[in-house]
This record gives sequence, C-alpha cells and structure tokens, in this order.
Amino acid sequence: VADSDVLDQARALLRGASHGALATLDRNDGAPVATLVAFASDRDASPLLLLSDLAEHTKNLAGDPRASLLIDGTQGLAERLTGPRLTVIGRLERCDSTAALERYFRRHPGSAMLRDFADFHLYRLVVERAHQVAGFGRIDAIAGADLTVATELLRDLAGMEAGAIAHMHDDHQDALDLLAGARAGQQAQLTGIDADGLDLSIGEEPHRAAFATRLGCASDLRAAIAALTRAVREKSAENNAG
Amino acid sequence: VADSDVLDQARALLRGASHGALATLDRNDGAPVATLVAFASDRDASPLLLLSDLAEHTKNLAGDPRASLLIDGTQGLAERLTGPRLTVIGRLERCDSTAALERYFRRHPGSAMLRDFADFHLYRLVVERAHQVAGFGRIDAIAGADLTVATELLRDLAGMEAGAIAHMHDDHQDALDLLAGARAGQQAQLTGIDADGLDLSIGEEPHRAAFATRLGCASDLRAAIAALTRAVREKSAENNAG
Repeated sequence: VADSDVLDQARALLRGASHGALATLDRNDGAPVATLVAFASDRDASPLLLLSDLAEHTKNLAGDPRASLLIDGTQGLAERLTGPRLTVIGRLERCDSTAALERYFRRHPGSAMLRDFADFHLYRLVVERAHQVAGFGRIDAIAGADLTVATELLRDLAGMEAGAIAHMHDDHQDALDLLAGARAGQQAQLTGIDADGLDLSIGEEPHRAAFATRLGCASDLRAAIAALTRAVREKSAENNAG
Repeated sequence: VADSDVLDQARALLRGASHGALATLDRNDGAPVATLVAFASDRDASPLLLLSDLAEHTKNLAGDPRASLLIDGTQGLAERLTGPRLTVIGRLERCDSTAALERYFRRHPGSAMLRDFADFHLYRLVVERAHQVAGFGRIDAIAGADLTVATELLRDLAGMEAGAIAHMHDDHQDALDLLAGARAGQQAQLTGIDADGLDLSIGEEPHRAAFATRLGCASDLRAAIAALTRAVREKSAENNAG
C-alpha cells in the first residue's frame, strides 16, 4: 500500500481537477490515443465523464472499454515535470445513475445544455490501478481500492448526507460561506459531502473544500468539517493581518 | 486535405506548446496509459521528447513504439471544451541527432542537468496522422505529411538558416528584440528558423514567434519575417496608444 501522503495527494488531484487527458485504444488499429475530456468525481471518487457518441474516444471505447485518465496538477509551475500528476487506469462503463449525472452537472454547470443532446451519455471509470508521479523520480503505484472510497464508509456517509447538509445550512452558514470564498452578499450552498471533502457552490459556480485526509469512518465527519473551517479561518485571518 | 485554417491552427499548437499528454500501451496488458511529458518540435515539426529509461512510458515504448501526444490549447479558457486541441499519432523512435537534442534543450533550458543523466534519451515522434478538435463539434483529420514540413522546404531552409540568423542580428536586432518581447537592456537571440516561425531567447528563456501561416518555399522567408515584425509592431503601438 502506498503511504498516506501519496494517497492524500492522489485523492486531492482526483477530487480537485475538472479536466484530464483520456487515453483510449484506436478502434481500427489499436494505437493509444490521447484526447481532452472534462470529468467530475463520483461520491466514491471514480471519475465521471460525459461523452458524445460522435467523439473519437467514444467510438474507441465501443471497441475496447480500457482507458486511463491523466490528471495534471503541474499547470502554472515553472518546471512542470517537478509537479504532481496522477494516471488512473481502468475501464470506462456507461453509467445510468441520475445522482451521478447531477454530480457531473454541478461540477460543470456550463455543460447544462448537453442534457438535451441525445448523443451524450455518462460514463464511469472503474478504477483498477493508478500511478502517481509526485515530482522528479518520485513514482508510486496505487491500487484502485486505495483511491476509491470503501463501500461501508460510502454507505454510511450517504445515509447522513442530507441531514448534515441541512444542519450546516441551519447552524453554520457562516462556515460554508467562508469555505466557498463567498463575498459580501453571496451565500454558499453545500451541494454534496463525500469522504474527501465538501462540494459547495455560489450560484452555479462550483467550489471544492478538501479535508486534509480522507475520513476513516462517517463519525469523523463533524470533526473534519470543524478542522477544515478552523484552518480556512486561520488562513483568512493571517491574510487580513498580512 | 484539411483546409488551411485547420492546418495553421494544428501547426501553431505543435510549435507553441512545451508539454503534452503522451499515450502509450502498457507493456504488461496493453492498456492505454496517459502520462505527462515535456516536448519540443524538431525543425520539421515532429515532436521531440527526452525520456528516462526508468519512466513507465519509456518501458511501455520498448514493448510497442506506438504513441500519441495530446497538445492542449484550451488552458485558461472558462469553457475548455470549446477550445482547440490536437492529437498527434505515430511511433516514438530513438533519435541520436545532436541538432535535435540542442533544439530540445533550447526549448527546455531548465532540463539542462539531464544531459548528465545516462538514463535519459531523445525520442522523435514520427507522425502518421493527427486529429484536431477546434471547438465544440469541430473535428478534423489531418495527414502526417500535412503537419510536418516537406523535405525540399526543410532542406532549403536549413541551407539558409545560419546566414539568415547572422543577417537578422547584424541588421535587425531591434526587430528580434520586439519579437521576443525584450525589455530595456535585454537583447534577444535568434536561435533557430523553421517553416512555421522563429525560435528566440532572452538569456535562457525561450520565446516563439510564429508566422501567420507556413512558408510555401524558402524564398518566402524574408517577407514572412517582415510581415511578422510589422504585425507585432502595430500591436505594440496599439497597446501603447490604448
């Protein structure tokens, strides 16, 4: 098992990014083909993609569902190859879950028009393995089961999500506004809770607030949100003081 | 043949970018694997990569040299999938050309230390075909021969490059400084000329000045540099006036 820093970074890349490079196998000659895609992460951290039947990669997947997704956390660095990136490898399967589709659109509100396009369908990358390059020469293999959220934790969190969201809005709207970076007059919405953090939005604009590390069990949720809020509040106070 | 606007855009992406997503075939199970790489373009526009024997993608290439490179021109756009990106598909072959290696290091001066690493070798992507997505639903197939520079033009330009570089420094240093965006006290170096534009540098920092379209023949070079300089001068005057 990769150590916990490696896993924290891999999960943060997966949850934090909105676009990646998809590799598929050319349907005619089997060549590896890289294309740009938008994605969201499902509750369990599996990447969700909305693909057109007309796109090259989708036609490739019809022939062979094997695929990988490169998530590049190096943009903006002067020496990009010293920065972190993650390749998630598995199979892309059609996904008919309405909850997953809504999760996708919350992450990509600008794609809302695609709801009405008959050739677009949701796919889920069933993660088998991953490898992460955390910088020059620092390469780690990661098992799929360490990247996605364990079934029991997933189920427990799903059971408490609606209540926790209502509680946060009722009693801690100020914390939500802080976590989403709301400005005066704006009000943040908490749209989802998963084992790695909170999905927030201001209007249609999505914001992600990540826990420092994945929850060990669902009962850690309250403490994790409190710690996250405290960290953001301290950082905000420092910035104001500086 | 793709129309000339499509080719201009594809060549500009290839010449302008410094990093891309490489897709290779996993050496064990043949799965498509996407990884981040730095690249430069050779004189003929073929991508040049400097890869470590220790990297996953290099081990994959030892098993099967087929590869593709995604060049993403969408970064910074609010709706990235409306922006341009190019996938170049072919075979990655070891390249022992010193000129090509120097071209690579001019583009990536921060990688100079890799000269002393015995496990790093230069590779050249022999382009077979490409496809470009120029925005939502605008997809074009491009033949490799339309992306790379024709042999005759390549040879003619190579024959006049050294003389043209000397002439530009002797008589048109002001134009070079303008094209490289030099500030007061800085002096630009013209380090290379190819059919799509000029490679410049200020100190070790590389700058690319692209012609509006690829040269038809080597005798177009003088007019193309003049047109490029005029365009940059007009834009600079506009900015100063605005």
